[in-house]
Amino acid sequence: MELDLKEIHDFAVGVAEAAGKVLLTRSSLVKNKANSVDLVTEVDEKVEAIIKKEIALRYPEHNFLGEETYSAGSLRVYAIGDEPTWCVDPIDGTVNYVHLFPMICVSIGFTYQGKSVVGAIHAPYLNQTFSAYQGGGAWVNRTTRLPYQNHPLAADAPRGCVFACEWGKDRRDEPNSNLSRKVDSFVNMATEIGGRNGMGGMVHGIRSLGSAALDLCYVATGAFDIWWEGGCWEWDVCAGVIIVQEAGGLVTTANPPDSTESPVPDVGLGSRLYLAIRPAVATESESSRDAQERVVREVWKRVRALDYSRPTE
Amino acid sequence: MELDLKEIHDFAVGVAEAAGKVLLTRSSLVKNKANSVDLVTEVDEKVEAIIKKEIALRYPEHNFLGEETYSAGSLRVYAIGDEPTWCVDPIDGTVNYVHLFPMICVSIGFTYQGKSVVGAIHAPYLNQTFSAYQGGGAWVNRTTRLPYQNHPLAADAPRGCVFACEWGKDRRDEPNSNLSRKVDSFVNMATEIGGRNGMGGMVHGIRSLGSAALDLCYVATGAFDIWWEGGCWEWDVCAGVIIVQEAGGLVTTANPPDSTESPVPDVGLGSRLYLAIRPAVATESESSRDAQERVVREVWKRVRALDYSRPTE
Repeated sequence: MELDLKEIHDFAVGVAEAAGKVLLTRSSLVKNKANSVDLVTEVDEKVEAIIKKEIALRYPEHNFLGEETYSAGSLRVYAIGDEPTWCVDPIDGTVNYVHLFPMICVSIGFTYQGKSVVGAIHAPYLNQTFSAYQGGGAWVNRTTRLPYQNHPLAADAPRGCVFACEWGKDRRDEPNSNLSRKVDSFVNMATEIGGRNGMGGMVHGIRSLGSAALDLCYVATGAFDIWWEGGCWEWDVCAGVIIVQEAGGLVTTANPPDSTESPVPDVGLGSRLYLAIRPAVATESESSRDAQERVVREVWKRVRALDYSRPTE
Repeated sequence: MELDLKEIHDFAVGVAEAAGKVLLTRSSLVKNKANSVDLVTEVDEKVEAIIKKEIALRYPEHNFLGEETYSAGSLRVYAIGDEPTWCVDPIDGTVNYVHLFPMICVSIGFTYQGKSVVGAIHAPYLNQTFSAYQGGGAWVNRTTRLPYQNHPLAADAPRGCVFACEWGKDRRDEPNSNLSRKVDSFVNMATEIGGRNGMGGMVHGIRSLGSAALDLCYVATGAFDIWWEGGCWEWDVCAGVIIVQEAGGLVTTANPPDSTESPVPDVGLGSRLYLAIRPAVATESESSRDAQERVVREVWKRVRALDYSRPTE
């Protein structure tokens, strides 16, 4: 099959920006609605239907997976195969949207042969569009290449890094709940060097925005050095993954492998476990990829494996 | 003394916006500098000098306190008295600025008789200016009144709330370090209802932006229901406090009082301990202030007292 990824990219950017305009109308809508959550579900479904319709008109032969239609089904089996497939989150950052915190976006991803190859993320309140297609680089607002600044990853990373993470929905007060696993990991990353039985990472700052898609965009710009997350779904990350990769970043799994010698695997879109490292220039002694893999392993030393899975059939 | 607070406000907004333009030049500067931290210190000092000069020209009789000039001194004694005093942070969110994460701002506050009475916060990358003066309301970009939406605080708050907090610089691996006190508090706020010996607050989401001034602005807009923080200084909060208050929010201390019957005190600008609750409309059964005080007490039940102090002479 011949796919024109640039054409698909330009189309996706246009659709994301048009959908973003619909999200902005919420500001006026909310005044007339008592229940914000119901309202958001309504906007979410409406925007997904608009995006789905546009795609069906332009690319009737492509598959479509949307967060809303997917969630409405009884199963959450991973449904991305080799065929050209659109993977869409009409509002990423729903909690932010309910509360009118501007870190929200429309996220439109496109996969082929199981990989994310086109991504368009539009943040209407920030007036920013992040986008990429395989081989075409990553961009903000179509004109500025990502990353903004490209510098080496420090030899003592994660020290000095900005670490992005999200608290998630599993709030059980149990030693092995994902909340406990995440908190232990966050605290290891934050603590002074030498602390926490040698696991202290002394990161420069910890950020939580409430949007996986925008977390990935800020990894692509170079603002966030590390994003570590579990629990979100393929529609949350599909567009962001290719944007990070085309900017020169690395995306792999959140969970440490059994052996410290294991190779760093490519991200599994449906794995619900994600770790992204920002673009980095090579130094005389280390390639960009080697530096990123070094930071991946330093993160894996400091985090607990997360317990997210999905129905298999 | 007669002070025209509207005039001071309009002047402060103009100065903040002009200073923000200087911050934007960093994007080009950074490419030519190896050491980002040195560069930022340079920009920080330069911008503070510009602001200080503008104020001295317009209001030569007013006092001036800036983060940079203050930090350069050997003492950090609280120096805000009854006289008209400007209290300025040229770059709030310095870590973000180093990493080019757009959550940064210029924060210009003005106090009289020891209280914050004018505030102007300009976020140049977001193209937003938040401002207020005593009796004049709180605004974004001069034209839109804050909060964006004004709804009641839920009867079961902090459940359902967006909780903003920052990890800070104290990263000691000790049970009574501020890191440990903060983490225990964050986890209490996050955990399911009934968990953590009844302290679970089940907040809707936790956000960390890395800018105290912008945290306060998002409390004023209504996006963040609760901001709880210790360790920052008067120049970080001086402008934000009046913006929250004029929007209808409440600002008090982070640390629980000895008795649960104690009144909710007004914020101490130099206390380094802050808790802000968003604007809320009254209901038939509860005034706005009563609802905010109820949420303050629910937060105090769930947080540990923080250990920040300052030199007394």
